[in-house]
Amino acid sequence: MAPPGPKPPNALTARRLGLDTQDEAMVFVRSDSPVCRSEGFSAHSRVQLTNGTRSIIATLYQTSTNLVSDHEIGLSEAAWRLLGLVEGGQISVSHPAPLESLKMVRGKVFGQRLDDASTRAIISDIVAGRYSDIHLSSFVTACSALPLDLAETIALTRAMVDTGSRITWGHAPIADKHCVGGLPGNRTTPVIVAICASLGLTIPKTSSRAITSPAGTADTMEVLTDVDLDLESMRQVVDQEGGCFIWGGGVQFSPADDALIRIERALDLDSEGALVASVLSKKIAAGATHVVIDIPVGPTAKVRSLSAASSLQSLIEKVASEFGLAVLALVTDGTQPVGRGIGPALEARDVLQVLRNDPDAPADLADRACLIAGALLELTGKAPSGTGKAMALNALRTGTAYSKFESICRAQGGFRPPVLAEHYRPFLAPAPGRVASIDNRRLARVAKLAGAPGDKAAGVDLHVRLGDTVKAGQALYTLYTQTPGELAYAIDYVTANPDIIELTRP
Amino acid sequence: MAPPGPKPPNALTARRLGLDTQDEAMVFVRSDSPVCRSEGFSAHSRVQLTNGTRSIIATLYQTSTNLVSDHEIGLSEAAWRLLGLVEGGQISVSHPAPLESLKMVRGKVFGQRLDDASTRAIISDIVAGRYSDIHLSSFVTACSALPLDLAETIALTRAMVDTGSRITWGHAPIADKHCVGGLPGNRTTPVIVAICASLGLTIPKTSSRAITSPAGTADTMEVLTDVDLDLESMRQVVDQEGGCFIWGGGVQFSPADDALIRIERALDLDSEGALVASVLSKKIAAGATHVVIDIPVGPTAKVRSLSAASSLQSLIEKVASEFGLAVLALVTDGTQPVGRGIGPALEARDVLQVLRNDPDAPADLADRACLIAGALLELTGKAPSGTGKAMALNALRTGTAYSKFESICRAQGGFRPPVLAEHYRPFLAPAPGRVASIDNRRLARVAKLAGAPGDKAAGVDLHVRLGDTVKAGQALYTLYTQTPGELAYAIDYVTANPDIIELTRP
Repeated sequence: MAPPGPKPPNALTARRLGLDTQDEAMVFVRSDSPVCRSEGFSAHSRVQLTNGTRSIIATLYQTSTNLVSDHEIGLSEAAWRLLGLVEGGQISVSHPAPLESLKMVRGKVFGQRLDDASTRAIISDIVAGRYSDIHLSSFVTACSALPLDLAETIALTRAMVDTGSRITWGHAPIADKHCVGGLPGNRTTPVIVAICASLGLTIPKTSSRAITSPAGTADTMEVLTDVDLDLESMRQVVDQEGGCFIWGGGVQFSPADDALIRIERALDLDSEGALVASVLSKKIAAGATHVVIDIPVGPTAKVRSLSAASSLQSLIEKVASEFGLAVLALVTDGTQPVGRGIGPALEARDVLQVLRNDPDAPADLADRACLIAGALLELTGKAPSGTGKAMALNALRTGTAYSKFESICRAQGGFRPPVLAEHYRPFLAPAPGRVASIDNRRLARVAKLAGAPGDKAAGVDLHVRLGDTVKAGQALYTLYTQTPGELAYAIDYVTANPDIIELTRP
Repeated sequence: MAPPGPKPPNALTARRLGLDTQDEAMVFVRSDSPVCRSEGFSAHSRVQLTNGTRSIIATLYQTSTNLVSDHEIGLSEAAWRLLGLVEGGQISVSHPAPLESLKMVRGKVFGQRLDDASTRAIISDIVAGRYSDIHLSSFVTACSALPLDLAETIALTRAMVDTGSRITWGHAPIADKHCVGGLPGNRTTPVIVAICASLGLTIPKTSSRAITSPAGTADTMEVLTDVDLDLESMRQVVDQEGGCFIWGGGVQFSPADDALIRIERALDLDSEGALVASVLSKKIAAGATHVVIDIPVGPTAKVRSLSAASSLQSLIEKVASEFGLAVLALVTDGTQPVGRGIGPALEARDVLQVLRNDPDAPADLADRACLIAGALLELTGKAPSGTGKAMALNALRTGTAYSKFESICRAQGGFRPPVLAEHYRPFLAPAPGRVASIDNRRLARVAKLAGAPGDKAAGVDLHVRLGDTVKAGQALYTLYTQTPGELAYAIDYVTANPDIIELTRP
């Protein structure tokens, strides 16, 4: 009789739990699983999972019920995808080697500066999914408690570029724009792309979907056309039209950034260095050579003071120059929402009104789009200094921008008109007054409670602007929702927050 | 026909997933659940769960499979317990109010000092389970990056005491001891309790189970007697015998601390202030008046330098005096394990050998126990200065300590002898040499791979000490395991780490 062979590796049968944990790799095993017993794993253990040549680190949880059997391991979608699994496949589970880069995070916590090598090691491990939320949070917090200096910000930017995919276009200039955010309805991107592309500038714009806001540019444009294009289709659209507005989710320009942003949001911590690295790394990876960055400033915007904006501006310019990127950081008014609509379809309506020169078009959205498009035209040399905005306005007024917008939509799969939600309720001024303040954050919250961005047709239509005089009973804004239930829910919040729009005696 | 009533709250049927997540409240809902749609929840959303008058905050994850149905919500054990649920119960799910105390964590991150009120707010929210791992990690990191000063450490200690349960004994002195850890086999507690109680000192000792180590004192004592006593039974044992050795898990002396320790461990971050608050808050809550703290120092112990030990000593003394606690912090040798056994049953054997004055008893364990017991006897005034250790040694040598040990075991439910594991394998010196170093951390790891503390009988028996001269083929240590499979696994690790015990040419 043969002697007993060596113990097989800790193999378990993979089971897909269909669990959306964003980028976090989570696995579930039985408490009485032989793997837990032999390896001494307990709840929150970090484990190494191996499927053939692929290997990741995940957080393990234990269950005593039949969620999984004792020879199975249940995986979150992120873990399933990273391991390239098929149902019933076998994976082995072991203790991970200690993460060397965590020593560098600890070094940062204890006051050491991050250099290029340590930053790259940290970011590479984050991209490979080797950091738990606890590790990510520690890194993000350390970068705020002991702020990144210029050299560290440059190192972080470089590490983020180097760990993602990168596009090259083979010619220059390649224009791009970004808004640091926090302003509901600030949907200038489709207008800017249409204007710039109509004037011969190449502007291959990728945008995000909303994460905490009521709409991202990709959500808004998806109301009007297809935005989920792959890189090859994107290239075709850009080669033909000079511009595009597609969802950037499929193109992993800075995968570490997604993980860090999720943590920053949970902590409501914005480190200036991390923000600059995040923005610029994505632009560099997208092949941009000339970028305008919109920094709205206001008491309820992301950047709340002119001094913070000025410090951010300066850091952006210094880091960009290190990468040969021509950048203009514009400080803009962030005291109230832009346009009228807040929510994908309502914003899409505003965008169309502006492009079509509709008499009802929100003038502030048109003006802001032309300001940024003009800055891009000047930065890339398409317009002499001081003439960019007028050139942009002309493209808008003559309809060439709208023609270009229609062409791009056709190239992306066709145009469709926006449809608003069935249920609506205006919210009225309780007394006459003058609009003294509009709370961007809480208004965004109302739009989300109404169903945006999940329900593209839902949101808020804002009827007033700062300084307007209103009569008692005049509508301040209107809620749009898909169901009476959601309407009731949003009304509850609005009723409990009557000062979202503050009126003073006229 | 009645008009449609108001929308019911977001009610879902609770389903117990038997999921061990330690103290983390996690819930699982379908992506297409009406609650997700109407509330806009996504993966990692923090949600408020309400069951009658009980309400907690949990982290939500989404699933697309039939893990739960679309009108169910699956809960981790921590969430289930905190909400006091029964199977099939209904709970409502909503957006939690913003946590005010997170502003204070952010303030700390940005350099503000924590005062009593903000520390209490943070710790109260942690105890109530309102912090996610991301929040906890940020707080722990901030306390390391911008170290707690004396006032902050006192505030943290006070907040931890005030948020847990607290015992009073009605008389003084009440003795206690603590070891800051990191030294395998350092099982002095049962010996110290037996000595002190035999000499008339009240020492109501509660101990922890192992979390990352191969054995906690509670694991070791559980080999010999019952340790899972409630507070009432503990009082009876202490009233009758003057001492006890029970598991402290049932008595929530400092519930915030469990959450913080889990995070500190994951980050391998030890903040001096957090450590002192953790240790002292538990002693104060347990009603101790006189405490000796053992600080082992060595290159592979928790505290690695004499200067770190001295700084820790000074902070312990200053904070303790603020609470009227008499404390002596002893710096001890942490260069190698204590005794021979590493693992519950092996350590229990060592403890018995010492108490029974067995000729084979490990002298270092006896000496260390008498040193600490002596310090406690002097600190409480039971022994004149300079005579404590001799008094302790005398109690050991005359057998009165062993009699007391037996009495306490009887009072706790009876004594049972330790049994070692069936499978064992000695690990031999490859060449003659002198023992130059012993790696505490990796040796603890070997004991865990062998099955400790889950298998109480498993572990490592260490046969050499620093400075010993060994022949080629002489056993350095022996692995004990319950199964041949675990033995093979531990041998793999030992083979890959031949330098756990370093030999130099004799």
